[in-house]
Amino acid sequence: MHDSVITFISDLAVIMIVAGFVTIIFHRLKQPVVLGYIVAGILIGPHTPPFELIRDEHTIKVLAELGVIFLMFSLGLEFSIRKLLKVGATALIAAVLEIVVMIWLGYQIGLWLGWNNNLDALFLGAILAISSTTIIVKALNDLKMKHERFAQLIFGVLIVEDILGIGLIALLSGVAISGSVSGSDVFFTISKLSLFMIVALLVGILLVPRLLAYVARFRSNEMMLVTVLGLCFGFCLLVVKLEYSMVLGAFIIGAIIAEAKELHWIEKLIEPVRDMFSAIFFVAVGLLLDPKIMIEYAIPILIIAGAVILGKVTSCTIGALIAGNDGRTSLKVGMGLSQIGEFSFIIAALGMSYKVTSDFLYPIAVAVSAITTLTTPYLIRAADPVARQIGKMIPQPVARIAGLYGEWLNHLHPQGTNAVIWNMIKRILTQIGINMAIVIAIFLCSTYLAVNLQSSFLSHWIGDIDWRKSLIWGTTLVISLPFLIAAFRKFKALSMMLAEMSVRESITGRHTQQVRRIISETLPLLFLTVTMLLLSALSAGILPKREALILVILSIVAIVFLLRSWFVRIHSRLQIALYETLDHEDRDQHEKNETDE
Amino acid sequence: MHDSVITFISDLAVIMIVAGFVTIIFHRLKQPVVLGYIVAGILIGPHTPPFELIRDEHTIKVLAELGVIFLMFSLGLEFSIRKLLKVGATALIAAVLEIVVMIWLGYQIGLWLGWNNNLDALFLGAILAISSTTIIVKALNDLKMKHERFAQLIFGVLIVEDILGIGLIALLSGVAISGSVSGSDVFFTISKLSLFMIVALLVGILLVPRLLAYVARFRSNEMMLVTVLGLCFGFCLLVVKLEYSMVLGAFIIGAIIAEAKELHWIEKLIEPVRDMFSAIFFVAVGLLLDPKIMIEYAIPILIIAGAVILGKVTSCTIGALIAGNDGRTSLKVGMGLSQIGEFSFIIAALGMSYKVTSDFLYPIAVAVSAITTLTTPYLIRAADPVARQIGKMIPQPVARIAGLYGEWLNHLHPQGTNAVIWNMIKRILTQIGINMAIVIAIFLCSTYLAVNLQSSFLSHWIGDIDWRKSLIWGTTLVISLPFLIAAFRKFKALSMMLAEMSVRESITGRHTQQVRRIISETLPLLFLTVTMLLLSALSAGILPKREALILVILSIVAIVFLLRSWFVRIHSRLQIALYETLDHEDRDQHEKNETDE
Repeated sequence: MHDSVITFISDLAVIMIVAGFVTIIFHRLKQPVVLGYIVAGILIGPHTPPFELIRDEHTIKVLAELGVIFLMFSLGLEFSIRKLLKVGATALIAAVLEIVVMIWLGYQIGLWLGWNNNLDALFLGAILAISSTTIIVKALNDLKMKHERFAQLIFGVLIVEDILGIGLIALLSGVAISGSVSGSDVFFTISKLSLFMIVALLVGILLVPRLLAYVARFRSNEMMLVTVLGLCFGFCLLVVKLEYSMVLGAFIIGAIIAEAKELHWIEKLIEPVRDMFSAIFFVAVGLLLDPKIMIEYAIPILIIAGAVILGKVTSCTIGALIAGNDGRTSLKVGMGLSQIGEFSFIIAALGMSYKVTSDFLYPIAVAVSAITTLTTPYLIRAADPVARQIGKMIPQPVARIAGLYGEWLNHLHPQGTNAVIWNMIKRILTQIGINMAIVIAIFLCSTYLAVNLQSSFLSHWIGDIDWRKSLIWGTTLVISLPFLIAAFRKFKALSMMLAEMSVRESITGRHTQQVRRIISETLPLLFLTVTMLLLSALSAGILPKREALILVILSIVAIVFLLRSWFVRIHSRLQIALYETLDHEDRDQHEKNETDE
Repeated sequence: MHDSVITFISDLAVIMIVAGFVTIIFHRLKQPVVLGYIVAGILIGPHTPPFELIRDEHTIKVLAELGVIFLMFSLGLEFSIRKLLKVGATALIAAVLEIVVMIWLGYQIGLWLGWNNNLDALFLGAILAISSTTIIVKALNDLKMKHERFAQLIFGVLIVEDILGIGLIALLSGVAISGSVSGSDVFFTISKLSLFMIVALLVGILLVPRLLAYVARFRSNEMMLVTVLGLCFGFCLLVVKLEYSMVLGAFIIGAIIAEAKELHWIEKLIEPVRDMFSAIFFVAVGLLLDPKIMIEYAIPILIIAGAVILGKVTSCTIGALIAGNDGRTSLKVGMGLSQIGEFSFIIAALGMSYKVTSDFLYPIAVAVSAITTLTTPYLIRAADPVARQIGKMIPQPVARIAGLYGEWLNHLHPQGTNAVIWNMIKRILTQIGINMAIVIAIFLCSTYLAVNLQSSFLSHWIGDIDWRKSLIWGTTLVISLPFLIAAFRKFKALSMMLAEMSVRESITGRHTQQVRRIISETLPLLFLTVTMLLLSALSAGILPKREALILVILSIVAIVFLLRSWFVRIHSRLQIALYETLDHEDRDQHEKNETDE
C-alpha cells in the first residue's frame, strides 16, 4: 500500500486511541468529552513530547473542517422555527443583549490589555460572544435538567445565538478582507444575509423534503446517507461560490432537512459520521495549542475567563429578567450560558486563516473555553442557592418593583379580540415580508445572472442590447409576478383591516364609510408606488431604455390582466406545498426527539 | 477558509451528488448500487468529459482506502466461527476448489492472451479467485432468497473465501516484493499468517470484548464509536508494522469485535461511516477507469467474464456436489458465486501500487466485475430451470451413482459412541493446536524483541551476553509455561484415550493393561521431546550457551514443580474467560442479526 495512506491511518489511529483513552478518563471525572478531545490533541500535538505523532497534518486539518461542517449541519437539524417562537421574547432579548455586551467587553479587554492590533480586540469580542451548544447540552444532560423550563429558554437563546453567530462570521470575513467595518457595511451584510437565508430556506423547504421523501421510498440507509451528504456538501459548495462561509451553508441545509419527515432517520445516520469528524475537529483544536503560550498568557486568560463568566451571567440574566422571567429562572439561564466553545474556535480559526489576528488569540480562546467549560456545571448547580442569597439581600422595595414589572409585562400582551386581530396582522405582515423577500431575491439573482451571461450567451441570439435588457427585465418581472400579486392582495386586505380598526364611528360619524374607503384604497396605491421604486432601484443594471420599458410594462400589464387568476393559483399552490411540509403529521414526534437530545 | 478545504469539499460534493443520482437510477433499474457508484466514478473521472471535476485526487484516494478498511472491518464483523462450522464441509471444499480453479484459469488465460508479464497473469488469476460478498448479499436481498439453504451455503463459502483471499493478498505482496514464489514460500507465508491470525484472535477475544463492555457502561454512542475506531485503526497499524496488509488487520479486528456483546450496537454505529467511505471507494474505482482502455480490451474482457461465469459455476457446483449437496442446491450455490467484486479491485490496486502489473489489468478487473455483477441475479433465477433441464438430460445410471455417492457420504459420518469419541478427540486436538500456536507465537515474539531490544536496552543492565540470553530465554519459557503445561496435559489425556481405543483386549489378552500403560506413557514423552526440539529451533537466536541453558532449565523445572497448580489455574482462568466471551447469552440474537443483514 502507499506510504501516504499508512501515514494517514497511523495519524487516525493515534487520534482515535488517545482520544478514546482521554475521553474515558474525562467521563469518569464527569467532565465533558469535548474537553477530553482537546487535551488529547494537546498531548499528541507538536508542542508536547513525544513529538511527531501526527505526520499528515494537511489531511487531518481537512477532515477537521469536515467536522465543523457536520457539527453545524447537526445544529441546523436541531433548529426549529416553532421551538424558537415558543421561547421567542426571552431568547431574542437575552441573545442580543449577551452578544452586544460580550463583543463590547471583549473589545475593551483587548484594548485594555494593550494589544496593538485592533482586529485582535474585535475578534476577541466575537470569540466571547457565542455560547457553546455542545457543552451546554452535555452539562444539562449530566445534571438531568434538560426538561426544566430554564433549559428550554437556554436552547432558545442558543438557536438565536447560532443564527447571529453565523451573521457574525459573515461580517468578520468581510472585515478581515476589507480591514474595516462601517455601519452601512453591517446593515448591508446583515440584510443580504437575511435575504439569502429566507430565500434558501423557502426554496429548500419546498424542494428538499420532497426529494428526501422520494429517496426514503427505497428504504435504503445507504442511499439516504449518500443523498443527505450530497445535499449537504452540494449546498456548502453553492454557499461558498456565493462567498459565504461553508459553516453557514451547513447550518441552512441542516435547517431545511430538519423539515423532512425522515428527520429522525437522518439524525441516526448522520450521528456517527458527525461524531467521528467532530472528534477529529476537537483533537485538531488541541493540536494547534502550544502549552507554552498558554502559560505565557496565563494572566490575560484568567482575566478573560472571568469576564466571560461575569459578563455572560449578568447580560443573560438581565435579558431574561427584562423578558419577564422570575429571578431564579433568569439566573439559571445566565449561569447555563456562561461559557464559550465551538463557535469561538471557528471564529479564532477564521482570523488565523485570513492572517489578520495574532498567534496568541487561538490558544487564548481554547484555554478560556476549557476553563469556562469546567465551571459551567458548578455554576448551574450554584444558581439556586445564589438566587436565594440574592433574594434575601434585595431590599423589599426593589423586589416589589420587579414584581410590578412582571405584572405590567403580562398586561402588555394583547388580550381577547385585540389579540386575535393582532395575530392576524402579524401573520399578514409576515406573508407580505416573505413574498417581497422572494421578489427582491429574484431581481438580485437576475441582475447577477444578466451581468455574467448576457455578454457571452444571450448576445448570440439577440443583437440589440436594449432588446436584451427588455427581455431579461420582462422575464424577471413575470417570474416575480405571483409573489408581487400575492403581496399586493395581502396588503389590500391589511389596509381594509387597518381602515376598519383605525377609523372609529364615534369620531368620523356619517363619513365613516368614505374615510375607510379612502384609506383602504390609498394605502395599496402607496404600496405599489414604493414597490415600483424599489424594483427599479434593484434592477438598475438591467432596466431597458424608457421606450422599451413602457412597452415591457404594457405587455406585463396585459399578461397580468389575462392570467391573473393563474398567477394567484400558482402562488397558492406553492404556499400550500410549503405549509404541508411545515405541518407534517409527525411534527409532535419530531419535537419530542429534539427535546430528548 | 483555506482553498484546499474548498477543493476537497467540492470533490466530495461532486462525488456524493453524482453517486446519489446514479444510484437512484440503478436502484430503479434494479441493479446493485455498487455498480452505480462505479459508473458515477467513470462519469466524473478524468477520462470522460467534463474533465477536472475531481481536483484533490490524493485526499480522495486516501479516503477510498478508508473505505476499503471499513468494508473489510464490516466483513469481519459478520464473520462467525459458529456460522462457518454449520456449513463447514461445503464451504471449505467449494471455496478451495473455486480459488484453485480460478487462479489456474486466470493464469492460463493471461498466458493465452499473450501477456508478456507473468505477474499480470498471476494477478489476473488472483483477481478472478474471490467472489463478491457485497454484490451477492445485495442480489439475494433483492430476490428475497437470503434465508434459503443455498444462500446459507453461499455465505459460508464467502467467509472461507474472505480468509483465503486475505492469505492471497499476503502472498501476492510477497511475490510483488521478491518477484517470485516458491512452494516453501507459500507454505511459510500461510503458516506464519495462520499463526498470527490464531494468536491475534485469541488474545483479541480475551481483551477486546472486555474493553468494549467497559466502554458500553457509559452508554454513549460517541465514546463507543471512538473506541471502536481507535481499535480498528490501531490494529491496522500494528498489522502494517508486522508487514501485513491493512485489509487483513481490519478483517481480524472486525472478527474480534464480532464476539463482543455490543456487536449489534457497533454495527449500527459503523454502518453509516462504512457506507460513506465505501461509496467513496467504489466511486474512486470508477475514477481510475478509462473507457477507451475498456473498448480497446473489449475482447479479453468478454473472454475473461465468460471464464469467470463458467469457471465459478462449474467449480462451485462441483465443490458443493462433492460435499454431498443435491444437484439443485449445488447449482444455485455455483450460480450465486459467479462474479467478482471488491476483493478483485483490492488485488488489482495492490499490483498497481507495487508497480508489478500492467495498466490495463485494473480496468479489465472492473469491467469484468461490472459484467458479472449484472449477470448474477439472472443466473440465480435461472438455476432452477437449468437444474431441471440437466436433470432430464442426465442418463439414469449416472443419476443412480450420484445417489449412491450421497448415501456413502452420509455413512462416512461417525455415528453413535464413535461419533462422541471422535468429537472428543477433535476437541482435544484443537485445544493442543491452539496452545502450541500460542507457545510458538510467544517464542517468535521473544526472538523478534530480543534481537531489537537487547543491544540497546538490556545491555545497560546486564553486561554479559550469555546472562542476557539466559534471562530472555528463561522469561519466554516461563510465560509460555501455562500453555505448554496445558498442551501436555491434554496430550496425556489424548494418549490415554488412544491407548484405550487402539488396544483391544481380544488381541493383547492379559497384557492389555500393561500395553495400554506403555502407550499412554510413551506418547507424552515423545510429545515432550518433539516440543523441546521445536522450541530450541524456534529460539535459536536467543538460546544461551550449554552451561547457562542447563541452569535455566533446572530453575524452570524447579519453578514448574513449585508453581504447577498455579500455572494450571492461570490457564484455566484464561480458558474460562475465552469461553465466556464466545458463549455470551445473546448469541442467538447475534446470529439472527447476521442472517438478517
